[in-house]
Amino acid sequence: MKIALAQLNFVIGDFEGNYTKMAKAVTQAKKLQADIICFPELAVTGYPPRDFLEFKNFVQGAIDTVDKLALLADDIAIVVGAPSINPIVEGKDLYNSAYFLAEKSIKHITHKALLPTYDIFDEYRYFEPATSFSTVTYKGKKIALSICEDIWNIKNENPLYTICPLDEVADEKPDFIINISASPFSFNHAEARLKIVQENAKRYHAPLFYVNHVGAQTEIIFAGGSVVANQNGDIYEEMVFFEEQLQVFDLEDIIKSKRNKIQKKNKIELIYRALVTGLSDYFQKLGFKKAILGLSGGIDSAIVAVLASDALGADNVRCILMPSQYSSDHSINDARILAENLGCQYDIVPIESVYNGFMGELDIHFSGLPFSLAEENLQARIRGTLLMAFSNKFGNILLNTSNKSEAAVGYGTLYGDMNGGLSVIGDLYKTEVFKLAHYINREKEIIPNNTIVKPPSAELRPDQKDSDSLPDYDILDAILFEYIENQKGPQEIENLGFDPKLVARILRMVNRNEFKRYQMPPVLRVSDKAFGMGRRMPIVGRYLS
Amino acid sequence: MKIALAQLNFVIGDFEGNYTKMAKAVTQAKKLQADIICFPELAVTGYPPRDFLEFKNFVQGAIDTVDKLALLADDIAIVVGAPSINPIVEGKDLYNSAYFLAEKSIKHITHKALLPTYDIFDEYRYFEPATSFSTVTYKGKKIALSICEDIWNIKNENPLYTICPLDEVADEKPDFIINISASPFSFNHAEARLKIVQENAKRYHAPLFYVNHVGAQTEIIFAGGSVVANQNGDIYEEMVFFEEQLQVFDLEDIIKSKRNKIQKKNKIELIYRALVTGLSDYFQKLGFKKAILGLSGGIDSAIVAVLASDALGADNVRCILMPSQYSSDHSINDARILAENLGCQYDIVPIESVYNGFMGELDIHFSGLPFSLAEENLQARIRGTLLMAFSNKFGNILLNTSNKSEAAVGYGTLYGDMNGGLSVIGDLYKTEVFKLAHYINREKEIIPNNTIVKPPSAELRPDQKDSDSLPDYDILDAILFEYIENQKGPQEIENLGFDPKLVARILRMVNRNEFKRYQMPPVLRVSDKAFGMGRRMPIVGRYLS
Repeated sequence: MKIALAQLNFVIGDFEGNYTKMAKAVTQAKKLQADIICFPELAVTGYPPRDFLEFKNFVQGAIDTVDKLALLADDIAIVVGAPSINPIVEGKDLYNSAYFLAEKSIKHITHKALLPTYDIFDEYRYFEPATSFSTVTYKGKKIALSICEDIWNIKNENPLYTICPLDEVADEKPDFIINISASPFSFNHAEARLKIVQENAKRYHAPLFYVNHVGAQTEIIFAGGSVVANQNGDIYEEMVFFEEQLQVFDLEDIIKSKRNKIQKKNKIELIYRALVTGLSDYFQKLGFKKAILGLSGGIDSAIVAVLASDALGADNVRCILMPSQYSSDHSINDARILAENLGCQYDIVPIESVYNGFMGELDIHFSGLPFSLAEENLQARIRGTLLMAFSNKFGNILLNTSNKSEAAVGYGTLYGDMNGGLSVIGDLYKTEVFKLAHYINREKEIIPNNTIVKPPSAELRPDQKDSDSLPDYDILDAILFEYIENQKGPQEIENLGFDPKLVARILRMVNRNEFKRYQMPPVLRVSDKAFGMGRRMPIVGRYLS
Repeated sequence: MKIALAQLNFVIGDFEGNYTKMAKAVTQAKKLQADIICFPELAVTGYPPRDFLEFKNFVQGAIDTVDKLALLADDIAIVVGAPSINPIVEGKDLYNSAYFLAEKSIKHITHKALLPTYDIFDEYRYFEPATSFSTVTYKGKKIALSICEDIWNIKNENPLYTICPLDEVADEKPDFIINISASPFSFNHAEARLKIVQENAKRYHAPLFYVNHVGAQTEIIFAGGSVVANQNGDIYEEMVFFEEQLQVFDLEDIIKSKRNKIQKKNKIELIYRALVTGLSDYFQKLGFKKAILGLSGGIDSAIVAVLASDALGADNVRCILMPSQYSSDHSINDARILAENLGCQYDIVPIESVYNGFMGELDIHFSGLPFSLAEENLQARIRGTLLMAFSNKFGNILLNTSNKSEAAVGYGTLYGDMNGGLSVIGDLYKTEVFKLAHYINREKEIIPNNTIVKPPSAELRPDQKDSDSLPDYDILDAILFEYIENQKGPQEIENLGFDPKLVARILRMVNRNEFKRYQMPPVLRVSDKAFGMGRRMPIVGRYLS
């Protein structure tokens, strides 16, 4: 028996487009003599469809698409993820289902039992969990269908859940297992996923076919990396990362094989590719081609320019250099060299005269008051406004260049440098930004070395440096990581050897700046805990603040 | 037996402050010879604590506070909501619990069984549902404790849930029921709540004491309106709306009484009071006093100025009038009259010279291209930037003045008029804004009549009117309501008699402008479906767009 895994990039709500893409894959799989083709979880709708699932019209569109797909299931069976309607009045209206389509009809439906409702996931908002389980038999083989999280509770050891769906069908002794997934990328997750596939295959002594989404849905990035393991847990194949791919596997070969073919996983390289994927899909799925960004001569905007040039082509990236009276000479020079290295268009738009124009109107109202945050932020907002003027005039999407460290402590200007349709590096701490810069320059100096080695500065007043108001990034990032990723309290962080006063100050800054992050653009997620939909915090609160 | 209901306004995460407030109420209740005092759901943490619940340190703070409260429970019993730890490994780590404190210790804990996970609610993200149920006996009375949603599944007729918690203890024949709630205001909800309390009391033939939060937590507003019903479902008392109150009720009186004392509920008045509460608590809980807003002469900013003056005092509201070459004479005049009627400080800051300054820098880049959206948005962004300059200089929080109709279709400028710390009327359709204006002017002309009767305009180019690019608000709002509140699809909306092309166009506008709403400030929620945390939509998608 031959099983095809179709690791594809879907568009949320584009039933027609998603159908066409799947139909092509079915044709190709038939040519390659596959008996079964598997598409990922909720492939029909794209993942996550979010509150579109509350629209009957949307759900009907998905179900109609499944019916259309069924007509293609003649001498091939199709496994595909889509919502299905819960016929029982009690409980949520929908299931998150794996449809087994054969002989031009729906032969079997398996519902998801373990519904992730944490971090970026809201599945219990929409779906009723499965309570009954059975295998499906096709061409003499007994198949256990499962959906994503359903394989993540081996031996019931995951504290979040109380049942293990595959245990429920283990007595039926399935010949193999199919898992259709929508498992978002984070740089820690790829290894974990491989291990869980191996453990499941071993536990049920059955080959496991795991198919994942690839491509980005706004902030959520899917890496692909679909996996096939044999009954002993050897990895027969780990499919490519960040690319669409259809592969056909022979069950008999897999059972006999002992090979262990996995993708190499370099953390910084994976992050780089994830961000390029995130950028490229954001533009493609919105129907835009061109990006714009402010290039300051600093490392953050430099990295974003490099990523954008890779994702969209340097021709489609326009850089605006906006020096002020506080800009150092090297800044404009470093920015210019980078744009030239990349081959991007760049324009220089000085902000001093506009700034003076604003101050001319404001002087009478500000009279006698010293230069303060208001004047600093004004410069950032003039830049943000200029960028949006270009964006509106020429149809370029503005890229946000904030990093995670500054987003965390609120070191950025709302409606100024926090502007943008997409935050490209908002899930990278400053120390990771430096690592990414070195990765980018690994073969030649693309980002001017001066940009990397000079002390970070917002250049909003004379001789300003980040270190004037923030601790060293090594220390800042370490504390932020313990608070944000590890959810440690102040005492626990102090116990790691950090200065109590500093810990208190930083945690307070994080909590007090929730109002800024609320209005931040969506952040491409590459860590286990990104700002945005995966971290939901009160704005008005008094905890540690 | 005497039961006190303490309808109070808590601060999220302020364990010390919340404790002090509750301790005072306990003292007062003791003086009034109450046997039991009841505080609302999650009173200790404030509601909703959101992802703070994922911090062990936060949960411990809450539990320590319950222990401190227990020490006050000497000759009075205390019922209070707080998280409790699930001792079983399997399942979520926490319960959402009602603690029964007596004899200086925790006598009983009831866990919430029905965990709302829809709209603004994320309870299953944090809590394990209760599976066992029992009453607690105090001074010879059997009491059924329940938490909010637990009373919302009478006869198991709520399709969301499969059990009815009070049915599980009905055999024990409780003498009365206590329900501690965190039930947010929406203008449709107040009536529904009254009915559900009555039905529960009748069904179990037991008096019901329902205590709710009052006050706002960023966008979520609690009205109070705590209720006591007798065993026949007669309303003994509906407590005040939008005010803190402690009341003591005599069980024997309630059992004998047939009175039906409810608050009058005028929809527009309730909305008005909800918005004032939302504004006032946002400032108070953040520790700010002063607001600023741009006053255009239009109805939206006029309403916000009135609400802010009521909530914060006219002395604390500063209005900035920012005319451009496209502003009509009446606009500046109408704005000025309103500010004078309210007694707010106002300043006039013309934007023409700053606009010309921007265009001076941009001309070379825009050369030859006609006046377009870029120049329109530029004006809005200059205004947004000026307002933020005042905000930063003087410590006033900028109030956003967008309404729900324009937020829905994207008729607003990101980083311009969409700026602000809080969206005051972003949950009111334009037609509702007009109703609110008439309500405000019911006794005398506070908002100049001209502001109400003139055709709405953004005044960003000569003779612009909203109706140039949008249908009449009556029609627009009706279609938006069917799509947003009623979640109808295009065909269903057409079937109501609307033009198919118009429906398609409006729905497309709504979906395509998700990127703008993502960066909008939090919106004070007064309807059943507000933009923000209660409506979670993909940005990159192709459904109806």
